Amino acid sequence: MTTLKTPKGTRDWAGEDVLLRDYIFQTITDVFKCHGAVSLDTPVFELRDVLAGKYGEDSRLIYNLEDQGGELCSLRYDLTVPFARWLAMHRNVKQIKRYQIAKVYRRDQPAIARGRLREFYQCDFDIAGIYDPMIPDAEILSIILEVFKALDLEVTIKLNHRRILDGIFEVAGVPAEKIRLVSSAVDKLDKVTWAEVKKEMVEEKGISELVADRIGEYVRCSGSISEIINVLESNKELNTNENIKAGLDDMNLLLSYLEALNVADKISFDLSLARGLDYYSGLIYEVVLISANQVGSIAAGGRYDNLVGMYSKHPIPCIGISFGVDRIFTLLNARQNKTLSEAVDVYILAAGSGKDWSGLLLERMAVARQLWDAGIRAVFTAKVKPKLLQQFTASEGVSIVVILGEDELATGQVRVKKNIEVKDKETAQKDRGQLVSRDDLVQEVKKLMEKDRSSGF
Amino acid sequence: MTTLKTPKGTRDWAGEDVLLRDYIFQTITDVFKCHGAVSLDTPVFELRDVLAGKYGEDSRLIYNLEDQGGELCSLRYDLTVPFARWLAMHRNVKQIKRYQIAKVYRRDQPAIARGRLREFYQCDFDIAGIYDPMIPDAEILSIILEVFKALDLEVTIKLNHRRILDGIFEVAGVPAEKIRLVSSAVDKLDKVTWAEVKKEMVEEKGISELVADRIGEYVRCSGSISEIINVLESNKELNTNENIKAGLDDMNLLLSYLEALNVADKISFDLSLARGLDYYSGLIYEVVLISANQVGSIAAGGRYDNLVGMYSKHPIPCIGISFGVDRIFTLLNARQNKTLSEAVDVYILAAGSGKDWSGLLLERMAVARQLWDAGIRAVFTAKVKPKLLQQFTASEGVSIVVILGEDELATGQVRVKKNIEVKDKETAQKDRGQLVSRDDLVQEVKKLMEKDRSSGF
Repeated sequence: MTTLKTPKGTRDWAGEDVLLRDYIFQTITDVFKCHGAVSLDTPVFELRDVLAGKYGEDSRLIYNLEDQGGELCSLRYDLTVPFARWLAMHRNVKQIKRYQIAKVYRRDQPAIARGRLREFYQCDFDIAGIYDPMIPDAEILSIILEVFKALDLEVTIKLNHRRILDGIFEVAGVPAEKIRLVSSAVDKLDKVTWAEVKKEMVEEKGISELVADRIGEYVRCSGSISEIINVLESNKELNTNENIKAGLDDMNLLLSYLEALNVADKISFDLSLARGLDYYSGLIYEVVLISANQVGSIAAGGRYDNLVGMYSKHPIPCIGISFGVDRIFTLLNARQNKTLSEAVDVYILAAGSGKDWSGLLLERMAVARQLWDAGIRAVFTAKVKPKLLQQFTASEGVSIVVILGEDELATGQVRVKKNIEVKDKETAQKDRGQLVSRDDLVQEVKKLMEKDRSSGF
Repeated sequence: MTTLKTPKGTRDWAGEDVLLRDYIFQTITDVFKCHGAVSLDTPVFELRDVLAGKYGEDSRLIYNLEDQGGELCSLRYDLTVPFARWLAMHRNVKQIKRYQIAKVYRRDQPAIARGRLREFYQCDFDIAGIYDPMIPDAEILSIILEVFKALDLEVTIKLNHRRILDGIFEVAGVPAEKIRLVSSAVDKLDKVTWAEVKKEMVEEKGISELVADRIGEYVRCSGSISEIINVLESNKELNTNENIKAGLDDMNLLLSYLEALNVADKISFDLSLARGLDYYSGLIYEVVLISANQVGSIAAGGRYDNLVGMYSKHPIPCIGISFGVDRIFTLLNARQNKTLSEAVDVYILAAGSGKDWSGLLLERMAVARQLWDAGIRAVFTAKVKPKLLQQFTASEGVSIVVILGEDELATGQVRVKKNIEVKDKETAQKDRGQLVSRDDLVQEVKKLMEKDRSSGF
């Protein structure tokens, strides 16, 4: 017999997990569509060359397809590189807001407890094209907050600007060639103490203690956008650096847009935020939950104006956000304060018993036909002569029951009732419901469904 | 520079193609849900052992992942085998109606004109579990017809029963070990003439001409289910064969259910239908378009009671249907008699010009905030001072325009108008719309959207 499992680091999605996953996807997609975004879907594998040289040492995590003749291919590692490849192939597309929700593949050690697998979902939204400065940047930040509001998760966006960060390193005295090294050390400040970060800079990255201290003095600043703008503008060493000046222009413009969009108060300007990826060139941001025991970010992104230029002589500036769908799933799944909507609206029950009873199967089918044609989700037990108790059990959790009896059917009628959950099952089963004509059945069922429609998912 | 393409036999989905694809998925899924079906999602790759020995000589078309240490895996070839693997892993699931819409992978020669690629969509619906005979079978056939009705495609289901077909071969004198060989020859009758099928049977499969002629006499029968039941029941040679007798019991029961479901007239009983896959054990069916130039089937399936038994000592009977989504896409795309709904509801336009004009960007953002918060899809041009003509162009195809002017904003008002397509653009542009208070804006826009809501997709 074959080993019965999914490959390491992969999983099946079934039952309530699928409903919750689809609810998350739908909620996020609805927000994207509010902003006029369109969907893009790319193949699960790309030419190996397309992925080459994009992920640094993480390239070892890429899944390759076996060489079975023909082109060499690999499974996609993220959704950003396929989008950049698509943009480079479609030079006629000058401006686009696109989203993609799809699985990506990394041969990493799975950390299942943290919801991180080898096959996992990414949900990306990006704005590509040339626009007036900081307008798409402000819109992306608004979209992030709209998504988490719709998901009922309280979050803060931690924001920084690569040019300001680079300017700080310059002012602190970091040599140009060590800026990215120092940046990746600073990026750990949300997980480890400043002492540890400093130790890494001095002992591993070869930064002098003096320079490290100056870095520490600046990057441990965070607050509202206007507060940190003030800190930077009022510091004479910093406010003369060209990178910082350019970054401050961006941040001032951004602040005015965020205020117009009424989202500035949900964003913190955090000079320690550095983000790992080399290709970010402007704003960078991470989303964290406002809650004590939250570890790591649940969405992250930034501006990357030079990535498409790796594929094409016609670079196109981009800014994007990637939502950590698996982490969001884990959070909402643990919360469980929403009930998922039922998979079925109506259970069709045949009342009767005894040896000579027909079971009313053909009649149940005919009623199902009526309901299905009206787009109502209806089921019956696929048995010729189902027992009453068996049917009551099968109808549990379904909100409406249509009851067929021989006498009622003879006069073209059926009974309809709300399937209320009661402790006293006998009482519930004695409620024989409302008598309605077959012709009015769909209308009556729809009325009951209207009443019942909850706002939950 | 990297070669800018997707791998051979794969494609990106963008623009209107995605909208049409999603419309097809949504339409099909809605029908499945009407029947109480739940979604199942499996990994894109499976352990290689799970796929081994399931596809006969087509196994050579399976994509393998490179051996990078750890388990050997391959991309899924269809959705049926992963479903069988899942059922075998979940012995607690006794009955399930599940659907899955996902891409599958075959290293075949791509036939792009016919919409067949190396990465393509399958859309499967299956009912697994023990039910009273023929009830799930009748429901599947009803679902097929509901799907194509919802897609507005006129189809016929061609139906046959493996046991009846095998009985015919027995009666005709085909030796047991040649039944599957003969069956696969007969399966070609929808593409080639009887003379060619006979030639293949006699010259390649070693069937005598007499036996071949007897097969031909029977299998070229087709008609309504009741007609063909009559043909089989009134033939003394056939009606005494055990396989045919069992098959006729099934067909009589099925017919009564199909009549109760009011779908019997859309189904033809076609004794030449054989279907390639070995694992079918009862009903088999294909869906064909009612139209002259249609080639091949657009959905197909059957009962397979023994597949899960290949993974588990606890086999579970199954019946399913697979919709050829790519072919359906090609058909609907060629038809184009439906208009896809717009991606955006409202364009926010700033009226004004001149050197001193602010461009009203912050005001456009604040209006967008109002509309987005109400779930209305709204965009504006991401420029500080957009030209009027540029904005008119950007608003084309968007059904509602909200116009901001400095004077109106000063009194807390904006203008709202339907963006009617007219030949005379000047007239359209002179329509300055209806003056509404900012407080009433969402309500007014929603009113216009209601009026505009078309039933198209």
